[in-house]
Amino acid sequence: MTVKQLALPDLVAECVRLGVPGVGLWREPVRAYGVEAAAALVREAGLAVTTLCRGGFFTSDGWEEENRAAIDEAVTLGTDTLVLVSGGLTATCPDLPSARARITEAIAELAPYAGDRGVRLAIEPLHPMYASDRCAVSTLDQALEIAERFPADQVGVTVDTYHLWWDDRAPAAVARAGVAGRVHSFQLADWTTPLPEGVLNGRGQLGTGSIDLRAWSAMLDEAGYEGPVEVELFNDALWARDGVEVLEETLDRFLAV
Amino acid sequence: MTVKQLALPDLVAECVRLGVPGVGLWREPVRAYGVEAAAALVREAGLAVTTLCRGGFFTSDGWEEENRAAIDEAVTLGTDTLVLVSGGLTATCPDLPSARARITEAIAELAPYAGDRGVRLAIEPLHPMYASDRCAVSTLDQALEIAERFPADQVGVTVDTYHLWWDDRAPAAVARAGVAGRVHSFQLADWTTPLPEGVLNGRGQLGTGSIDLRAWSAMLDEAGYEGPVEVELFNDALWARDGVEVLEETLDRFLAV
Repeated sequence: MTVKQLALPDLVAECVRLGVPGVGLWREPVRAYGVEAAAALVREAGLAVTTLCRGGFFTSDGWEEENRAAIDEAVTLGTDTLVLVSGGLTATCPDLPSARARITEAIAELAPYAGDRGVRLAIEPLHPMYASDRCAVSTLDQALEIAERFPADQVGVTVDTYHLWWDDRAPAAVARAGVAGRVHSFQLADWTTPLPEGVLNGRGQLGTGSIDLRAWSAMLDEAGYEGPVEVELFNDALWARDGVEVLEETLDRFLAV
Repeated sequence: MTVKQLALPDLVAECVRLGVPGVGLWREPVRAYGVEAAAALVREAGLAVTTLCRGGFFTSDGWEEENRAAIDEAVTLGTDTLVLVSGGLTATCPDLPSARARITEAIAELAPYAGDRGVRLAIEPLHPMYASDRCAVSTLDQALEIAERFPADQVGVTVDTYHLWWDDRAPAAVARAGVAGRVHSFQLADWTTPLPEGVLNGRGQLGTGSIDLRAWSAMLDEAGYEGPVEVELFNDALWARDGVEVLEETLDRFLAV
Protein backbone atom coordinates (compact mmCIF):
# COMPACT_ATOMS: atom_id res chain seq x y z
CA MET A 1 0.00 0.00 0.00
CA THR A 2 3.00 2.28 0.56
CA VAL A 3 3.58 2.23 -3.21
CA LYS A 4 0.12 1.39 -4.46
CA GLN A 5 0.91 3.29 -7.66
CA LEU A 6 3.08 0.31 -8.69
CA ALA A 7 1.37 -2.58 -10.49
CA LEU A 8 1.89 -5.90 -8.74
CA PRO A 9 4.51 -7.23 -11.24
CA ASP A 10 6.47 -3.97 -10.96
CA LEU A 11 6.28 -4.06 -7.17
CA VAL A 12 7.56 -7.63 -7.13
CA ALA A 13 10.37 -6.92 -9.61
CA GLU A 14 11.51 -3.85 -7.69
CA CYS A 15 11.47 -5.66 -4.36
CA VAL A 16 13.67 -8.37 -5.87
CA ARG A 17 16.01 -5.80 -7.41
CA LEU A 18 16.37 -3.93 -4.11
CA GLY A 19 16.78 -7.04 -1.99
CA VAL A 20 13.53 -6.57 -0.08
CA PRO A 21 12.74 -10.12 1.02
CA GLY A 22 9.00 -9.92 1.53
CA VAL A 23 5.92 -7.89 0.87
CA GLY A 24 2.61 -7.31 2.64
CA LEU A 25 -0.25 -7.38 0.18
CA TRP A 26 -3.74 -5.90 0.22
CA ARG A 27 -6.78 -7.78 -0.89
CA GLU A 28 -8.07 -5.32 -3.47
CA PRO A 29 -5.04 -5.24 -5.80
CA VAL A 30 -4.52 -8.97 -5.30
CA ARG A 31 -8.10 -9.73 -6.30
CA ALA A 32 -7.88 -7.37 -9.24
CA TYR A 33 -4.79 -9.20 -10.47
CA GLY A 34 -6.17 -12.62 -9.59
CA VAL A 35 -5.34 -14.37 -6.33
CA GLU A 36 -3.78 -17.45 -7.93
CA ALA A 37 -1.83 -15.34 -10.40
CA ALA A 38 -0.58 -13.04 -7.64
CA ALA A 39 0.46 -16.03 -5.56
CA ALA A 40 2.43 -17.48 -8.48
CA LEU A 41 4.03 -14.13 -9.27
CA VAL A 42 5.32 -13.61 -5.75
CA ARG A 43 6.29 -17.24 -5.22
CA GLU A 44 8.28 -17.44 -8.45
CA ALA A 45 10.13 -14.25 -7.52
CA GLY A 46 11.17 -15.83 -4.22
CA LEU A 47 9.39 -13.18 -2.15
CA ALA A 48 7.59 -13.92 1.08
CA VAL A 49 4.08 -12.59 1.54
CA THR A 50 4.49 -11.19 5.04
CA THR A 51 0.79 -10.46 5.68
CA LEU A 52 -2.50 -10.05 3.90
CA CYS A 53 -4.39 -6.86 4.73
CA ARG A 54 -7.11 -6.92 5.67
CA GLY A 55 -9.97 -8.84 7.20
CA GLY A 56 -12.25 -7.44 9.86
CA PHE A 57 -15.05 -4.87 9.74
CA PHE A 58 -17.02 -7.18 11.98
CA THR A 59 -19.61 -4.56 12.83
CA SER A 60 -20.90 -4.54 9.24
CA ASP A 61 -23.20 -7.04 7.59
CA GLY A 62 -21.55 -9.80 5.59
CA TRP A 63 -18.45 -9.95 7.78
CA GLU A 64 -18.44 -13.73 8.03
CA GLU A 65 -18.40 -14.55 4.33
CA GLU A 66 -15.95 -11.74 3.66
CA ASN A 67 -13.51 -12.88 6.34
CA ARG A 68 -13.63 -16.55 5.36
CA ALA A 69 -12.77 -15.42 1.84
CA ALA A 70 -9.87 -13.35 3.19
CA ILE A 71 -8.54 -16.35 5.12
CA ASP A 72 -8.79 -18.51 1.99
CA GLU A 73 -6.91 -15.85 0.01
CA ALA A 74 -4.19 -15.78 2.66
CA VAL A 75 -3.79 -19.54 2.25
CA THR A 76 -3.54 -19.21 -1.53
CA LEU A 77 -0.96 -16.43 -1.20
CA GLY A 78 1.10 -18.51 1.20
CA THR A 79 1.07 -16.02 4.06
CA ASP A 80 0.45 -17.11 7.63
CA THR A 81 -1.01 -13.79 8.81
CA LEU A 82 -4.25 -11.96 8.13
CA VAL A 83 -4.37 -8.46 9.60
CA LEU A 84 -7.74 -7.45 11.06
CA VAL A 85 -9.17 -3.94 11.11
CA SER A 86 -12.12 -4.70 13.30
CA GLY A 87 -14.72 -2.08 12.34
CA GLY A 88 -16.30 0.94 13.99
CA LEU A 89 -19.78 1.96 15.06
CA THR A 90 -22.71 0.94 12.87
CA ALA A 91 -26.50 0.75 13.11
CA THR A 92 -26.27 -2.70 14.69
CA CYS A 93 -23.33 -1.77 16.93
CA PRO A 94 -24.02 1.87 17.75
CA ASP A 95 -21.65 2.24 20.71
CA LEU A 96 -18.19 1.10 21.69
CA PRO A 97 -19.22 -1.66 24.13
CA SER A 98 -21.53 -3.30 21.59
CA ALA A 99 -18.94 -2.95 18.83
CA ARG A 100 -16.24 -4.50 20.99
CA ALA A 101 -18.55 -7.36 21.99
CA ARG A 102 -19.38 -8.07 18.34
CA ILE A 103 -15.69 -8.03 17.41
CA THR A 104 -14.91 -10.58 20.09
CA GLU A 105 -17.77 -12.84 18.98
CA ALA A 106 -16.75 -12.64 15.35
CA ILE A 107 -13.15 -13.53 16.09
CA ALA A 108 -14.34 -16.46 18.18
CA GLU A 109 -16.19 -17.73 15.15
CA LEU A 110 -13.30 -17.20 12.73
CA ALA A 111 -10.32 -18.28 14.84
CA PRO A 112 -10.75 -22.06 14.42
CA TYR A 113 -11.40 -21.68 10.70
CA ALA A 114 -8.20 -19.67 10.35
CA GLY A 115 -6.20 -21.93 12.65
CA ASP A 116 -7.23 -25.04 10.71
CA ARG A 117 -5.75 -23.44 7.60
CA GLY A 118 -2.51 -22.28 9.17
CA VAL A 119 -3.52 -18.61 9.18
CA ARG A 120 -3.08 -16.40 12.24
CA LEU A 121 -5.46 -13.52 12.81
CA ALA A 122 -3.62 -10.35 13.83
CA ILE A 123 -5.96 -7.88 15.54
CA GLU A 124 -4.72 -4.39 14.77
CA PRO A 125 -5.55 -1.66 17.26
CA LEU A 126 -6.09 1.52 15.29
CA HIS A 127 -5.42 5.01 16.61
CA PRO A 128 -8.31 6.28 18.77
CA MET A 129 -9.13 8.84 16.08
CA TYR A 130 -10.57 5.91 14.08
CA ALA A 131 -12.67 4.49 16.93
CA SER A 132 -16.02 5.55 15.49
CA ASP A 133 -15.60 4.78 11.81
CA ARG A 134 -12.94 2.10 11.32
CA CYS A 135 -11.91 0.25 14.45
CA ALA A 136 -13.35 0.18 17.96
CA VAL A 137 -10.17 -1.56 19.14
CA SER A 138 -7.98 1.42 20.02
CA THR A 139 -5.18 0.11 22.24
CA LEU A 140 -2.82 -2.81 22.26
CA ASP A 141 -4.23 -3.80 25.65
CA GLN A 142 -7.72 -4.06 24.15
CA ALA A 143 -6.45 -6.11 21.22
CA LEU A 144 -4.57 -8.44 23.56
CA GLU A 145 -7.58 -8.86 25.84
CA ILE A 146 -9.43 -10.27 22.86
CA ALA A 147 -6.52 -12.28 21.46
CA GLU A 148 -5.76 -13.94 24.78
CA ARG A 149 -9.07 -15.79 24.69
CA PHE A 150 -7.70 -17.92 21.85
CA PRO A 151 -4.59 -19.98 21.13
CA ALA A 152 -1.64 -17.82 20.06
CA ASP A 153 -1.33 -19.66 16.76
CA GLN A 154 -4.89 -18.62 15.93
CA VAL A 155 -5.10 -15.02 17.19
CA GLY A 156 -2.52 -12.36 17.97
CA VAL A 157 -1.99 -8.67 17.37
CA THR A 158 -0.52 -6.23 14.89
CA VAL A 159 1.79 -3.61 16.35
CA ASP A 160 1.75 -0.49 14.17
CA THR A 161 3.77 2.45 15.43
CA TYR A 162 1.43 4.99 13.85
CA HIS A 163 -1.50 3.76 15.89
CA LEU A 164 0.24 3.09 19.19
CA TRP A 165 3.10 5.56 19.59
CA TRP A 166 1.22 7.92 21.95
CA ASP A 167 0.24 5.18 24.44
CA ASP A 168 2.39 4.94 27.55
CA ARG A 169 0.90 1.52 28.24
CA ALA A 170 1.91 0.11 24.88
CA PRO A 171 5.45 -0.92 25.86
CA ALA A 172 4.17 -3.19 28.64
CA ALA A 173 1.58 -4.63 26.26
CA VAL A 174 4.24 -5.29 23.62
CA ALA A 175 6.31 -7.18 26.18
CA ARG A 176 3.29 -9.20 27.29
CA ALA A 177 2.34 -9.98 23.70
CA GLY A 178 5.90 -10.93 22.84
CA VAL A 179 6.28 -13.39 25.69
CA ALA A 180 3.03 -15.05 24.64
CA GLY A 181 4.07 -15.27 20.98
CA ARG A 182 1.17 -13.06 19.98
CA VAL A 183 2.90 -10.35 17.96
CA HIS A 184 1.95 -11.55 14.49
CA SER A 185 2.81 -8.38 12.62
CA PHE A 186 4.95 -5.28 13.16
CA GLN A 187 4.40 -2.24 10.98
CA LEU A 188 6.19 1.10 10.80
CA ALA A 189 4.90 4.54 9.91
CA ASP A 190 5.80 7.92 11.34
CA TRP A 191 3.44 10.52 12.85
CA THR A 192 3.34 13.87 11.11
CA THR A 193 1.03 16.85 11.45
CA PRO A 194 -1.11 18.61 10.40
CA LEU A 195 -3.35 15.65 9.77
CA PRO A 196 -5.22 15.76 6.46
CA GLU A 197 -9.01 15.90 6.18
CA GLY A 198 -10.40 12.47 7.01
CA VAL A 199 -7.07 11.60 8.72
CA LEU A 200 -6.48 8.52 6.57
CA ASN A 201 -3.70 9.41 4.19
CA GLY A 202 -1.21 11.43 6.20
CA ARG A 203 1.12 8.76 7.56
CA GLY A 204 4.63 10.05 7.64
CA GLN A 205 7.66 8.68 5.83
CA LEU A 206 9.98 7.00 8.34
CA GLY A 207 12.15 9.48 10.20
CA THR A 208 10.14 12.57 9.28
CA GLY A 209 7.82 12.65 12.28
CA SER A 210 7.42 12.35 16.02
CA ILE A 211 7.87 8.63 16.61
CA ASP A 212 11.09 7.18 17.99
CA LEU A 213 11.13 4.28 15.53
CA ARG A 214 14.46 2.96 16.78
CA ALA A 215 13.00 2.68 20.25
CA TRP A 216 10.00 0.77 18.89
CA SER A 217 12.25 -1.55 16.95
CA ALA A 218 14.31 -2.21 20.06
CA MET A 219 11.13 -2.79 22.05
CA LEU A 220 9.99 -5.47 19.60
CA ASP A 221 13.44 -7.06 19.66
CA GLU A 222 13.34 -7.19 23.43
CA ALA A 223 9.89 -8.75 23.27
CA GLY A 224 11.39 -11.58 21.23
CA TYR A 225 9.77 -10.60 17.95
CA GLU A 226 11.63 -12.17 15.04
CA GLY A 227 9.08 -11.74 12.27
CA PRO A 228 9.10 -9.36 9.34
CA VAL A 229 8.95 -5.59 9.77
CA GLU A 230 6.59 -3.93 7.34
CA VAL A 231 6.39 -0.29 6.30
CA GLU A 232 2.83 0.85 5.73
CA LEU A 233 2.44 4.45 4.63
CA PHE A 234 -0.90 5.78 3.50
CA ASN A 235 0.18 9.10 2.11
CA ASP A 236 -1.28 11.09 -0.74
CA ALA A 237 1.99 12.91 -1.32
CA LEU A 238 3.95 9.66 -1.61
CA TRP A 239 1.30 8.13 -3.86
CA ALA A 240 1.58 11.09 -6.22
CA ARG A 241 5.28 10.41 -6.80
CA ASP A 242 7.10 7.80 -8.88
CA GLY A 243 6.60 4.47 -7.15
CA VAL A 244 10.12 3.14 -7.68
CA GLU A 245 11.59 6.33 -6.26
CA VAL A 246 9.33 6.08 -3.21
CA LEU A 247 10.22 2.41 -2.72
CA GLU A 248 13.94 3.22 -2.85
CA GLU A 249 13.51 6.16 -0.48
CA THR A 250 11.47 4.06 1.92
CA LEU A 251 14.10 1.32 1.95
CA ASP A 252 16.82 3.89 2.70
CA ARG A 253 14.74 5.35 5.51
CA PHE A 254 13.95 1.90 6.85
CA LEU A 255 17.63 1.01 7.05
CA ALA A 256 18.44 4.38 8.63
CA VAL A 257 15.94 4.06 11.49
CA MET B 1 -15.50 29.32 22.52
CA THR B 2 -18.62 27.48 21.33
CA VAL B 3 -20.03 30.83 20.21
CA LYS B 4 -16.87 32.82 19.73
CA GLN B 5 -18.67 34.90 17.10
CA LEU B 6 -20.50 36.63 19.96
CA ALA B 7 -18.82 39.64 21.55
CA LEU B 8 -18.40 39.26 25.30
CA PRO B 9 -21.28 41.64 26.26
CA ASP B 10 -23.61 39.82 23.86
CA LEU B 11 -22.55 36.44 25.19
CA VAL B 12 -23.19 37.55 28.74
CA ALA B 13 -26.57 39.10 27.91
CA GLU B 14 -27.71 36.01 26.04
CA CYS B 15 -26.62 33.68 28.83
CA VAL B 16 -28.65 35.76 31.28
CA ARG B 17 -31.67 35.80 28.94
CA LEU B 18 -31.54 32.02 28.47
CA GLY B 19 -30.95 31.21 32.12
CA VAL B 20 -27.46 29.81 31.60
CA PRO B 21 -25.90 30.29 35.04
CA GLY B 22 -22.23 30.34 34.14
CA VAL B 23 -19.75 30.64 31.36
CA GLY B 24 -16.26 29.34 30.67
CA LEU B 25 -14.05 32.05 29.24
CA TRP B 26 -10.94 31.98 27.08
CA ARG B 27 -7.99 34.20 27.71
CA GLU B 28 -7.72 35.80 24.26
CA PRO B 29 -11.19 37.42 24.10
CA VAL B 30 -10.98 38.33 27.79
CA ARG B 31 -7.67 40.09 27.30
CA ALA B 32 -8.93 41.83 24.18
CA TYR B 33 -11.90 43.15 26.15
CA GLY B 34 -9.81 43.87 29.23
CA VAL B 35 -9.59 41.46 32.14
CA GLU B 36 -10.97 43.87 34.77
CA ALA B 37 -13.76 44.98 32.44
CA ALA B 38 -14.66 41.39 31.60
CA ALA B 39 -14.71 40.50 35.27
CA ALA B 40 -17.05 43.40 36.04
CA LEU B 41 -19.29 42.57 33.09
CA VAL B 42 -19.80 38.97 34.13
CA ARG B 43 -20.05 39.73 37.84
CA GLU B 44 -22.66 42.43 37.38
CA ALA B 45 -24.72 40.06 35.22
CA GLY B 46 -24.71 37.52 38.04
CA LEU B 47 -22.95 34.89 35.95
CA ALA B 48 -20.35 32.52 37.32
CA VAL B 49 -17.09 32.14 35.44
CA THR B 50 -16.87 28.36 35.46
CA THR B 51 -13.30 28.09 34.16
CA LEU B 52 -10.63 30.06 32.41
CA CYS B 53 -9.11 28.37 29.35
CA ARG B 54 -6.27 27.98 29.14
CA GLY B 55 -2.87 27.75 30.71
CA GLY B 56 -0.29 25.17 29.82
CA PHE B 57 1.98 24.72 26.79
CA PHE B 58 4.74 23.90 29.23
CA THR B 59 7.03 22.52 26.54
CA SER B 60 7.42 25.97 24.98
CA ASP B 61 9.65 28.80 26.14
CA GLY B 62 8.03 31.41 28.34
CA TRP B 63 5.58 29.01 29.96
CA GLU B 64 6.23 30.22 33.49
CA GLU B 65 5.44 33.89 32.96
CA GLU B 66 2.51 33.04 30.74
CA ASN B 67 0.97 30.68 33.26
CA ARG B 68 1.42 32.99 36.24
CA ALA B 69 -0.39 35.62 34.21
CA ALA B 70 -3.17 33.15 33.47
CA ILE B 71 -3.54 32.35 37.17
CA ASP B 72 -3.70 36.04 37.99
CA GLU B 73 -6.37 36.53 35.33
CA ALA B 74 -8.40 33.68 36.82
CA VAL B 75 -8.28 35.44 40.18
CA THR B 76 -9.44 38.69 38.63
CA LEU B 77 -12.28 36.93 36.82
CA GLY B 78 -13.37 35.22 40.02
CA THR B 79 -13.08 31.66 38.74
CA ASP B 80 -11.47 28.94 40.81
CA THR B 81 -10.34 26.83 37.86
CA LEU B 82 -7.67 27.24 35.20
CA VAL B 83 -7.75 24.56 32.49
CA LEU B 84 -4.34 23.39 31.30
CA VAL B 85 -3.50 22.20 27.80
CA SER B 86 -0.05 20.97 28.55
CA GLY B 87 1.82 21.23 25.25
CA GLY B 88 3.25 18.82 22.71
CA LEU B 89 6.68 18.00 21.33
CA THR B 90 9.13 20.85 20.84
CA ALA B 91 12.84 21.31 20.20
CA THR B 92 13.55 21.16 23.93
CA CYS B 93 11.09 18.30 24.55
CA PRO B 94 11.38 16.26 21.36
CA ASP B 95 9.75 13.05 22.58
CA LEU B 96 6.83 12.07 24.77
CA PRO B 97 8.81 11.06 27.88
CA SER B 98 10.69 14.38 27.97
CA ALA B 99 7.51 16.35 27.30
CA ARG B 100 5.67 14.54 30.08
CA ALA B 101 8.55 15.09 32.48
CA ARG B 102 8.61 18.82 31.68
CA ILE B 103 4.86 19.08 32.17
CA THR B 104 5.13 17.50 35.61
CA GLU B 105 7.98 19.82 36.62
CA ALA B 106 6.12 22.89 35.41
CA ILE B 107 2.99 21.99 37.32
CA ALA B 108 5.06 21.40 40.44
CA GLU B 109 6.34 24.94 40.12
CA LEU B 110 2.92 26.49 39.47
CA ALA B 111 0.72 24.52 41.86
CA PRO B 112 1.62 26.41 45.06
CA TYR B 113 1.32 29.77 43.28
CA ALA B 114 -2.15 28.79 42.07
CA GLY B 115 -3.17 27.28 45.39
CA ASP B 116 -2.14 30.39 47.31
CA ARG B 117 -4.54 32.38 45.11
CA GLY B 118 -7.46 29.97 45.35
CA VAL B 119 -7.09 28.73 41.79
CA ARG B 120 -7.14 25.03 40.95
CA LEU B 121 -5.16 23.77 37.97
CA ALA B 122 -7.18 21.33 35.86
CA ILE B 123 -4.94 19.19 33.66
CA GLU B 124 -6.85 18.34 30.51
CA PRO B 125 -5.90 15.17 28.70
CA LEU B 126 -6.36 15.81 24.99
CA HIS B 127 -7.24 13.16 22.43
CA PRO B 128 -4.15 11.17 21.36
CA MET B 129 -4.38 12.73 17.91
CA TYR B 130 -3.02 15.91 19.54
CA ALA B 131 -0.11 14.21 21.33
CA SER B 132 2.61 15.63 19.10
CA ASP B 133 1.47 19.20 18.62
CA ARG B 134 -0.78 20.26 21.52
CA CYS B 135 -0.75 17.97 24.51
CA ALA B 136 1.45 15.05 25.46
CA VAL B 137 -1.04 14.14 28.18
CA SER B 138 -3.42 11.85 26.28
CA THR B 139 -5.38 9.89 28.88
CA LEU B 140 -7.17 10.63 32.11
CA ASP B 141 -4.88 8.15 33.84
CA GLN B 142 -1.84 10.16 32.75
CA ALA B 143 -3.42 13.41 33.91
CA LEU B 144 -4.31 11.88 37.25
CA GLU B 145 -0.84 10.45 37.72
CA ILE B 146 0.47 14.00 37.55
CA ALA B 147 -2.33 15.58 39.58
CA GLU B 148 -2.04 13.08 42.40
CA ARG B 149 1.41 14.40 43.30
CA PHE B 150 -0.24 17.59 44.56
CA PRO B 151 -3.06 18.55 46.91
CA ALA B 152 -6.48 18.21 45.27
CA ASP B 153 -7.27 21.86 45.86
CA GLN B 154 -4.20 22.78 43.80
CA VAL B 155 -4.25 20.31 40.93
CA GLY B 156 -6.96 18.17 39.36
CA VAL B 157 -8.20 17.20 35.92
CA THR B 158 -10.56 18.28 33.19
CA VAL B 159 -12.86 15.57 31.86
CA ASP B 160 -13.82 16.37 28.25
CA THR B 161 -15.93 13.77 26.49
CA TYR B 162 -14.44 14.59 23.08
CA HIS B 163 -10.96 13.67 24.23
CA LEU B 164 -11.76 10.65 26.38
CA TRP B 165 -14.79 8.88 24.93
CA TRP B 166 -12.81 6.14 23.16
CA ASP B 167 -10.85 5.07 26.29
CA ASP B 168 -12.17 2.00 28.08
CA ARG B 169 -10.03 2.93 31.09
CA ALA B 170 -11.55 6.37 31.43
CA PRO B 171 -14.58 5.33 33.53
CA ALA B 172 -12.35 3.88 36.25
CA ALA B 173 -10.20 6.99 36.15
CA VAL B 174 -13.26 9.23 36.46
CA ALA B 175 -14.35 7.31 39.53
CA ARG B 176 -10.88 7.55 41.04
CA ALA B 177 -10.68 11.27 40.30
CA GLY B 178 -14.14 11.85 41.70
CA VAL B 179 -13.47 10.15 45.02
CA ALA B 180 -10.34 12.25 45.40
CA GLY B 181 -12.14 15.50 44.57
CA ARG B 182 -9.93 16.02 41.55
CA VAL B 183 -12.49 16.55 38.80
CA HIS B 184 -12.20 20.30 38.47
CA SER B 185 -13.96 20.66 35.12
CA PHE B 186 -16.36 18.64 33.01
CA GLN B 187 -16.82 19.53 29.35
CA LEU B 188 -19.11 18.12 26.67
CA ALA B 189 -18.62 17.80 22.93
CA ASP B 190 -19.68 15.06 20.56
CA TRP B 191 -17.47 13.06 18.18
CA THR B 192 -18.31 13.37 14.50
CA THR B 193 -16.45 12.27 11.37
CA PRO B 194 -14.93 12.88 8.92
CA LEU B 195 -12.46 14.96 10.86
CA PRO B 196 -11.45 18.23 9.20
CA GLU B 197 -7.90 19.01 8.08
CA GLY B 198 -5.83 19.79 11.18
CA VAL B 199 -8.50 18.04 13.31
CA LEU B 200 -9.08 21.09 15.51
CA ASN B 201 -12.43 22.48 14.53
CA GLY B 202 -14.68 19.48 13.97
CA ARG B 203 -16.18 18.93 17.41
CA GLY B 204 -19.74 17.79 17.07
CA GLN B 205 -22.86 19.49 18.40
CA LEU B 206 -24.24 17.49 21.33
CA GLY B 207 -26.27 14.49 20.23
CA THR B 208 -25.05 14.46 16.63
CA GLY B 209 -22.13 12.07 17.05
CA SER B 210 -20.84 8.84 18.53
CA ILE B 211 -20.55 9.67 22.22
CA ASP B 212 -23.08 8.47 24.76
CA LEU B 213 -23.25 11.81 26.57
CA ARG B 214 -25.95 10.65 28.97
CA ALA B 215 -23.69 7.83 30.09
CA TRP B 216 -20.84 10.29 30.64
CA SER B 217 -23.08 12.59 32.60
CA ALA B 218 -24.23 9.68 34.76
CA MET B 219 -20.62 8.62 35.23
CA LEU B 220 -19.68 12.05 36.56
CA ASP B 221 -22.75 12.07 38.82
CA GLU B 222 -21.74 8.70 40.23
CA ALA B 223 -18.23 9.99 40.79
CA GLY B 224 -19.69 12.70 43.00
CA TYR B 225 -19.05 15.56 40.61
CA GLU B 226 -21.26 18.51 41.47
CA GLY B 227 -19.54 21.29 39.54
CA PRO B 228 -20.61 23.02 36.35
CA VAL B 229 -20.95 21.20 33.04
CA GLU B 230 -19.52 23.14 30.14
CA VAL B 231 -20.12 22.72 26.43
CA GLU B 232 -17.02 23.35 24.38
CA LEU B 233 -17.47 23.03 20.62
CA PHE B 234 -14.73 24.07 18.25
CA ASN B 235 -16.60 23.87 15.01
CA ASP B 236 -16.18 25.94 11.87
CA ALA B 237 -19.75 25.25 10.77
CA LEU B 238 -21.18 26.46 14.09
CA TRP B 239 -18.92 29.51 14.10
CA ALA B 240 -20.20 30.47 10.65
CA ARG B 241 -23.78 30.69 11.93
CA ASP B 242 -25.60 33.29 14.00
CA GLY B 243 -24.18 33.07 17.51
CA VAL B 244 -27.47 33.51 19.36
CA GLU B 245 -29.07 30.77 17.28
CA VAL B 246 -26.13 28.44 18.04
CA LEU B 247 -26.33 29.27 21.74
CA GLU B 248 -30.05 28.48 21.83
CA GLU B 249 -29.56 25.27 19.88
CA THR B 250 -26.71 24.22 22.15
CA LEU B 251 -28.80 24.84 25.25
CA ASP B 252 -31.63 22.73 23.80
CA ARG B 253 -29.21 19.94 22.97
CA PHE B 254 -27.61 20.18 26.38
CA LEU B 255 -30.95 19.78 28.12
CA ALA B 256 -31.89 16.90 25.79
CA VAL B 257 -28.79 14.83 26.47
